[in-house]
Amino acid sequence: MNSVWLADHTWQEVEEYITSKHSIIVPVGATEQHGPAGPLGVDTYVAMGLAEDAARATGLLVAPPVWLGDSFHHSAFPGTIWLKSSTMIAVITDIAHSLAEAGFTRQIYVNGHKGSNLPSLTLALREVHEYQHPEALFAIADPLHLGRAVAGEIKQAAEHHGGALELSQVMYRYPNKVREDKLTDASVDLEAIGGGYIASDLFGQGSIVEISWNSREERAFSPSGSISSSHTASVDLGKRFHEAMVGELCKFIQWFESYTGPLGVVSEDEI
Amino acid sequence: MNSVWLADHTWQEVEEYITSKHSIIVPVGATEQHGPAGPLGVDTYVAMGLAEDAARATGLLVAPPVWLGDSFHHSAFPGTIWLKSSTMIAVITDIAHSLAEAGFTRQIYVNGHKGSNLPSLTLALREVHEYQHPEALFAIADPLHLGRAVAGEIKQAAEHHGGALELSQVMYRYPNKVREDKLTDASVDLEAIGGGYIASDLFGQGSIVEISWNSREERAFSPSGSISSSHTASVDLGKRFHEAMVGELCKFIQWFESYTGPLGVVSEDEI
Amino acid sequence: MNSVWLADHTWQEVEEYITSKHSIIVPVGATEQHGPAGPLGVDTYVAMGLAEDAARATGLLVAPPVWLGDSFHHSAFPGTIWLKSSTMIAVITDIAHSLAEAGFTRQIYVNGHKGSNLPSLTLALREVHEYQHPEALFAIADPLHLGRAVAGEIKQAAEHHGGALELSQVMYRYPNKVREDKLTDASVDLEAIGGGYIASDLFGQGSIVEISWNSREERAFSPSGSISSSHTASVDLGKRFHEAMVGELCKFIQWFESYTGPLGVVSEDEI
Amino acid sequence: MNSVWLADHTWQEVEEYITSKHSIIVPVGATEQHGPAGPLGVDTYVAMGLAEDAARATGLLVAPPVWLGDSFHHSAFPGTIWLKSSTMIAVITDIAHSLAEAGFTRQIYVNGHKGSNLPSLTLALREVHEYQHPEALFAIADPLHLGRAVAGEIKQAAEHHGGALELSQVMYRYPNKVREDKLTDASVDLEAIGGGYIASDLFGQGSIVEISWNSREERAFSPSGSISSSHTASVDLGKRFHEAMVGELCKFIQWFESYTGPLGVVSEDEI
Amino acid sequence: MNSVWLADHTWQEVEEYITSKHSIIVPVGATEQHGPAGPLGVDTYVAMGLAEDAARATGLLVAPPVWLGDSFHHSAFPGTIWLKSSTMIAVITDIAHSLAEAGFTRQIYVNGHKGSNLPSLTLALREVHEYQHPEALFAIADPLHLGRAVAGEIKQAAEHHGGALELSQVMYRYPNKVREDKLTDASVDLEAIGGGYIASDLFGQGSIVEISWNSREERAFSPSGSISSSHTASVDLGKRFHEAMVGELCKFIQWFESYTGPLGVVSEDEI
Amino acid sequence: MNSVWLADHTWQEVEEYITSKHSIIVPVGATEQHGPAGPLGVDTYVAMGLAEDAARATGLLVAPPVWLGDSFHHSAFPGTIWLKSSTMIAVITDIAHSLAEAGFTRQIYVNGHKGSNLPSLTLALREVHEYQHPEALFAIADPLHLGRAVAGEIKQAAEHHGGALELSQVMYRYPNKVREDKLTDASVDLEAIGGGYIASDLFGQGSIVEISWNSREERAFSPSGSISSSHTASVDLGKRFHEAMVGELCKFIQWFESYTGPLGVVSEDEI
Repeated sequence: MNSVWLADHTWQEVEEYITSKHSIIVPVGATEQHGPAGPLGVDTYVAMGLAEDAARATGLLVAPPVWLGDSFHHSAFPGTIWLKSSTMIAVITDIAHSLAEAGFTRQIYVNGHKGSNLPSLTLALREVHEYQHPEALFAIADPLHLGRAVAGEIKQAAEHHGGALELSQVMYRYPNKVREDKLTDASVDLEAIGGGYIASDLFGQGSIVEISWNSREERAFSPSGSISSSHTASVDLGKRFHEAMVGELCKFIQWFESYTGPLGVVSEDEI
Repeated sequence: MNSVWLADHTWQEVEEYITSKHSIIVPVGATEQHGPAGPLGVDTYVAMGLAEDAARATGLLVAPPVWLGDSFHHSAFPGTIWLKSSTMIAVITDIAHSLAEAGFTRQIYVNGHKGSNLPSLTLALREVHEYQHPEALFAIADPLHLGRAVAGEIKQAAEHHGGALELSQVMYRYPNKVREDKLTDASVDLEAIGGGYIASDLFGQGSIVEISWNSREERAFSPSGSISSSHTASVDLGKRFHEAMVGELCKFIQWFESYTGPLGVVSEDEI
Repeated sequence: MNSVWLADHTWQEVEEYITSKHSIIVPVGATEQHGPAGPLGVDTYVAMGLAEDAARATGLLVAPPVWLGDSFHHSAFPGTIWLKSSTMIAVITDIAHSLAEAGFTRQIYVNGHKGSNLPSLTLALREVHEYQHPEALFAIADPLHLGRAVAGEIKQAAEHHGGALELSQVMYRYPNKVREDKLTDASVDLEAIGGGYIASDLFGQGSIVEISWNSREERAFSPSGSISSSHTASVDLGKRFHEAMVGELCKFIQWFESYTGPLGVVSEDEI
Repeated sequence: MNSVWLADHTWQEVEEYITSKHSIIVPVGATEQHGPAGPLGVDTYVAMGLAEDAARATGLLVAPPVWLGDSFHHSAFPGTIWLKSSTMIAVITDIAHSLAEAGFTRQIYVNGHKGSNLPSLTLALREVHEYQHPEALFAIADPLHLGRAVAGEIKQAAEHHGGALELSQVMYRYPNKVREDKLTDASVDLEAIGGGYIASDLFGQGSIVEISWNSREERAFSPSGSISSSHTASVDLGKRFHEAMVGELCKFIQWFESYTGPLGVVSEDEI
Repeated sequence: MNSVWLADHTWQEVEEYITSKHSIIVPVGATEQHGPAGPLGVDTYVAMGLAEDAARATGLLVAPPVWLGDSFHHSAFPGTIWLKSSTMIAVITDIAHSLAEAGFTRQIYVNGHKGSNLPSLTLALREVHEYQHPEALFAIADPLHLGRAVAGEIKQAAEHHGGALELSQVMYRYPNKVREDKLTDASVDLEAIGGGYIASDLFGQGSIVEISWNSREERAFSPSGSISSSHTASVDLGKRFHEAMVGELCKFIQWFESYTGPLGVVSEDEI
Repeated sequence: MNSVWLADHTWQEVEEYITSKHSIIVPVGATEQHGPAGPLGVDTYVAMGLAEDAARATGLLVAPPVWLGDSFHHSAFPGTIWLKSSTMIAVITDIAHSLAEAGFTRQIYVNGHKGSNLPSLTLALREVHEYQHPEALFAIADPLHLGRAVAGEIKQAAEHHGGALELSQVMYRYPNKVREDKLTDASVDLEAIGGGYIASDLFGQGSIVEISWNSREERAFSPSGSISSSHTASVDLGKRFHEAMVGELCKFIQWFESYTGPLGVVSEDEI
């Protein structure tokens, strides 16, 4: 069986795997509107694609994808499914605990939903490491950070929700899922809406304050759901974006898998 | 786009869909040990296969699969990932609410994890219907009940966790996922363990009391994780089991989609 | 003191009891409408009657009755008192934990509220056995299963909420509580309401799907609250139904009290 | 039907009742050790006796008793069953809400468990009145306050847990439940244990600080569980104590039932 | 550094402190309306003043003040900030646990918010002592009890929310915070509102029942927010009230700091 | 009364204030170790100082400080007091709701605890804006972002926990609170500990992944608690850092106070 997916393996194969490896990748996405061209699953496909390709390159397993996340700000667009933050924290906590119990002491959460999921992921994993599993380490990797360098090189416009980079990545990695005839130059002038205090480019320097909007506001200021223009999306752009991030992720994973401390080193009586 | 999966559609396509349809199918499974031959994803594959085929036949959409469930009694076998019951209830509650907000007033939860997930599904959906969405109806379909008639005809032995019927179904519907060389006649004499008060056959009449076991007990009494023998599993058996259940499910869905009350009919001021 | 009720004993008598016995019976009911003839306490009286008679026959103690349960679907009828499911799970968890701490390693929950309470009871007791008390075993007994055989022999019509069997049982065991002049042939054609997918007979084979109704729907389709006809109820019918179930329960309890494993056998360091 | 117990009535009788009356009494007790002579149910019997007699005198209904409360400080004595405080708050919240939904706009909680249950009762009922039912009023009556005057006249010693007054009350109202041959002069010098800062007499002036003990401490300083001596308990003492409190309770209830505001008077749009 | 405030010390100074001392004082107040003359912070200033002066006299540390409490019944007056009871319990639980982990085995909670905060404080601290920290003792001191004797001597009228005693105390201890030109003789006749069953004087004997009001009722019956008259408030009255309470508190603390059991003495394996 | 602190005002003054202003500042800090020189209150003092000075310059009110936050990773150093993340979310939710109910439709949370508190603040405020108060806007300002520009100009070394910038700010704004004789060049090579994947400079570009450490690891790798060197701290450095941030904050607040939408503009029936 050469699937990288944990769910395709038997428990005996997993038992064998953890005799020599410590790591597992957990893809975390969302099911939410991505404008007229992006399917609802964009964020999960991004996470799955990164996880699967990095796993293949490094010989690791991938846990089942988390298809749902902190998406209530998109909830005015039908098809969006959202978890309350407390639910999301509970789900991640249970996954991290289950995997650590099995012996996965290096867990890499690949988040495809960018900033929205990060607070819940951070809170859940910090507390699992403090209270339940000092012997296991938990890393969060996100295109926002993984792709910072390459995005700076290749993006042609501000990149935000439904933008050219994320749609290109899906076009490259999961052909025929983006509606290419619906790619659009519709975008939202977040600087104008937020007096310069809301950043239009997720790969920019960020604002000096954080202001969130809610679902009704989003539907009002972005009737199509596209916050960035996507009409320059292309398979080639997606390939460059995706491969660069997979490369960064693989480098990290190799370091993480072979990491021996001081983090995660606990005295015998703590486990 | 002719995918049945919601996540492959854009929000505008979903908005269009709900102008003429009311139903959506939600596959709910688990990631847990299924003996030496069954991959960890058996229950989710069962739910996905039933959901996808019924959706194709009836023209419906399918929500992203729920890969995790109430599996802690299998937690002594590595690779099993479990949600606490309170987490599971929260996840189902949030999904049902999100979909009802979008206008899906007929929701069919296809559970592949049999009895273990049923209490959480039932509690979540009953309270959503009572307190949040009186206008939406929620049905739970499970192989335990969908397959009762056909199982009686075709099964050759008691069917329990990791048994011939569920492995056959995966062999038929998702080729190459079952380790056919590991099919086994290992089984557990639950009647002996439970003095006749624990049923060995999930399709039998059931016991007069309910007694649950925990993860350590299971690992002790079933070292391989196989509770029923699976050595008679075959693609053909799986096809008969699966198709019969898809047939039952389609009949139900057609009735449900066109159902006009009295359940789910609320006065204007309640919505 | 020859009361079977725990609350009538002193703590020293309980301390003495658990030097030789392991079991306790916990009656769980509800306070909810039972049609024009049934008092609100029917389910609790059923549970108390079964528990008390089985306890007397086997020399066991009975915990105080749980008078409230998952009854919100009856909440449109005044006098019904309901717990949210999360409250119900918390109550059962606390009871099971308290009793196990005292040394009651065999606990039998006798539920008089049939299917409605079962999910909460199951979730609570499964998690207590997994996480808190591997050394204690928890069984759930319910008229739905205890009475399956005898009901098949004696019932004269489909038996559902407020039906002839449960009212007869109260008439026999708690004289003068049923309003015999209000026994009724009012019943609800659940098959018609649910297109054949909702079973009219709780002792029948069940449906292939589970659909729940809510409180407003119930008040609309069953203005009297009687879902099954009760006009054939009689003390004699109640006696046959009750005694048969007490017999089954006693047989089970004797086995359970003397059961020595493998379930519930834990190594010293787990307790 | 002349039972005062709600559970003995049908929903139609309750519907009739609330056309002319507003009040219901809810007895709240505990199941916990009461020394060598007191049965575990003392607190619940006290609450039930007060509730039943006041109901009979005033023509009111009584809800099913709450048999369990905040008793973990007695948990080192077997037979004690305790709810976590969060569970207790949830139970009281659900009861108050259910009864207010039915139209009971005057609810009297008669607590037999004295100070231990009061914080949970207070928190639950305050929030129900603030957030859920401004139209309903909730009163808490407790022997600590109801019996202050009469206790001052009749008690012969400091009265604390398991003392002469509460055991006398049960001896009078529920004959044969107290083990009269086990009445004891064992008591605990709480003043010595707590440097004068823990009061030995629940009917005294109280301390200037509140210090709580836990279950293991109690078992250590009070091996018999009797904190006050009970050897002077008698049926006659119980009668005087009980009847005086019933009298106070009846006077209160008559005022409460006929109370017309300003508390509980809400404008139409708030209900 | 001779600040008594914990937050002004470094962790190394705290580490040194707990080699010789066990106690810490935690001031708990509220931010809520106190009539036309009292600033919103009255209750917190009361708690801080008592804590600081007692700490100075006894050489102890004071934790940061808890500025928010159970104040929803004042929420109809702007500026009031309230915690839900469950939040308040969580906050106190976390503080008590943090401090006990650091080695503070004697914790004195000085509550300035009188009865309103007491149930939450009691529930939180009782459960911390039972389940988390049997080795630490927790005391609650409140002006209601600390000041009972002196209030009886010096008060000139019934003292309730916004009354002369608490405003005097702030006038004395925190000059210029009370609006002396807005002192008022406005008061509420709670006896009339509550038929004699709601006490107008917090230092009186109390009622035989407890009835709570909600925020809208308070705004209606007390348009100024002043429940007691405050026009007799004076610095001198405040000084007498405050100093007497500080004296009582110091006496208690000295006893508590040197207390050696039996409460709080646990065997080695429990810690 | 010219205090900027809400707690120093009466409710009538607040009622007057909100007839002409919409904004309030909420300082949020922590009580946690800050190395040998920093008092436990550093983060709260930073938040209070920024809030107070910005409020004075803009004529706004400041809510009482939140003294406790997400600090468990410092919990191995005594004196640290931490809230669980769920408690922190509840506290912020209750504050935001209380203030919005009073009419504060622009709330600025000034966080002195940098990254650690941000996830909880973000989750709480996002959900309040989505579900409870669409009419109110919530901004989070943090030295990490407010001070990015000025830090780049003035810092002389990597700045992390206990570093020169934050201690300088306290030295300037709250004289005599930093132990200047304990300023230290002790620092931790986080790059070495985390293979280059943990950033040593909070004002740098950040890592491509997020890895958290727990309390025991911190105590092991940083015995003094100082993660950055602080020996270059000075009042002058603090002044420049503080004043620059106050300037940024004031500019933001002026824009925010006068902002008229589209965010926060809701139709009448939503409020």
